[in-house]
Amino acid sequence: MAELHPVCAPLAFLLGTWRGTGAGTYPSIEDFSYAEEVSFAHVGKPFVAYSQKTKNADTGLPLHAEAGYLRPQGDGRVELVLVQPSGIVELLEGTVEDCDVQLASTAVLGTASAKPVTATERRFWVEGDALRSSVAMAAMGLELQHHVLSEMYRLS
Amino acid sequence: MAELHPVCAPLAFLLGTWRGTGAGTYPSIEDFSYAEEVSFAHVGKPFVAYSQKTKNADTGLPLHAEAGYLRPQGDGRVELVLVQPSGIVELLEGTVEDCDVQLASTAVLGTASAKPVTATERRFWVEGDALRSSVAMAAMGLELQHHVLSEMYRLS
Repeated sequence: MAELHPVCAPLAFLLGTWRGTGAGTYPSIEDFSYAEEVSFAHVGKPFVAYSQKTKNADTGLPLHAEAGYLRPQGDGRVELVLVQPSGIVELLEGTVEDCDVQLASTAVLGTASAKPVTATERRFWVEGDALRSSVAMAAMGLELQHHVLSEMYRLS
Repeated sequence: MAELHPVCAPLAFLLGTWRGTGAGTYPSIEDFSYAEEVSFAHVGKPFVAYSQKTKNADTGLPLHAEAGYLRPQGDGRVELVLVQPSGIVELLEGTVEDCDVQLASTAVLGTASAKPVTATERRFWVEGDALRSSVAMAAMGLELQHHVLSEMYRLS
């Protein structure tokens, strides 16, 4: 078990595995709900590995997944690089303060077969023993707007 | 255990966890060797999740890691989206044929604090019971050139 890199200390509140439920909405699709599990892990280096999976709460079938790395900059600023199986990669920049990470995309790119996503905003924050995760998204030619919000509790 | 999505059939030879060793070189750094573990997994959807970790073979300390998704297009073409803790994301396109995936980047982007990488070529191929993985890279202002090659054997 490696010691946490000092630059990661402001993100220590995220470390572990969290499980809960969420709800999503977007003009181009039907509203939906889901079960979610996220993990934040470190290996002693100056980043935190993030992975996420959601599934249909009724059928257990997989819905979304994503993986990436949080890169704290030591001055309250944080970068996040992210990849999605939908063929999209995101670079985000933002801040961490008081157990609240707020990020906005500086670039979103997709492969030739990916749906058009042009911008995102992401937030991870802990209040009491609940981790909340939200994503706003500009996709399919629409303006940046709320997409998903979930609430999770620590498994480990 | 989900059934493999038919579009993923040409990538079935990769599925599982592989472990082995590799060697790296680049003009801007000392030659190095490493122990590597990669995993290719699916959930029944039309992509294959890829994750990779390397460590110092002597000390066991972590070196590199990356995560991403292979997206077969059903006609021999494959996309790969990839993220690295160094703050870099890659979009690659290429082909799969006869247990050989060959990809070249269409875009490489880094965060403000990432080292400058402008292009990569990646290959995963199986000969006999060995998986080989190679990366060529244009970084630090240098031309695209060989960077790492590893050979791994299936764990599961």
